[in-house]
Amino acid sequence: MINFEKNGGLVPAIAQDVDSGEVLMLAWMNREAWEETLRTGQAVYYSRSRGRLWRKGEESGHVQQVVEVRIDCDADTILLKVRQIGGAACHEGYKSCFFRRVMGDQLQIIAERVVDPAVIYRKQ
Amino acid sequence: MINFEKNGGLVPAIAQDVDSGEVLMLAWMNREAWEETLRTGQAVYYSRSRGRLWRKGEESGHVQQVVEVRIDCDADTILLKVRQIGGAACHEGYKSCFFRRVMGDQLQIIAERVVDPAVIYRKQ
Repeated sequence: MINFEKNGGLVPAIAQDVDSGEVLMLAWMNREAWEETLRTGQAVYYSRSRGRLWRKGEESGHVQQVVEVRIDCDADTILLKVRQIGGAACHEGYKSCFFRRVMGDQLQIIAERVVDPAVIYRKQ
Repeated sequence: MINFEKNGGLVPAIAQDVDSGEVLMLAWMNREAWEETLRTGQAVYYSRSRGRLWRKGEESGHVQQVVEVRIDCDADTILLKVRQIGGAACHEGYKSCFFRRVMGDQLQIIAERVVDPAVIYRKQ
């Protein structure tokens, strides 16, 4: 169903808030992450920095409940429509990882932190 | 501003409809595509299949006018908020490339074609 031949077996997966339509983040899936996401109904990615499966929320408890799964015309990109538990998809405490806008040669923060990152990870 | 060190100099770029919030497509940018996008105000990607810059709409005339540019927390993914001229971001004639939903082990088409692909590319 998915073409895992490119990017060393990884495909990009976009997580979008199912209610607001806000794009929350982009992460990567290998075949195992994809299958685990479908099996569990929660977003499971492959962390390139950790070199292993990453069950989103495994440290913070802030999982992503997957409401709908779409794939693109080339079957090499995944779109998850999710409910983000805890309100913040971003490890920096913002709802979305895309909290910065390009303005000329500057970056402007255009969102408020919804969670204190120190509090998220203290839960562990 | 962008970290082009991963993925062989390419970063994923998500195009989202600025009005509806619909995710239209994901493509790739190298540094030159990124700079051309900012300079021209129209989405320019790097086509991996063609091995060159791809000015979205160069064949069809259906360009993407870039209204806002965001980058993510790791500065390795780009989010473009765009106006899709012609109504179809997808080369198959759908508004969004994500026109298929996963239902068990099946794919279900959940959108209508808005343009006949044969008509788009005859314009060339």
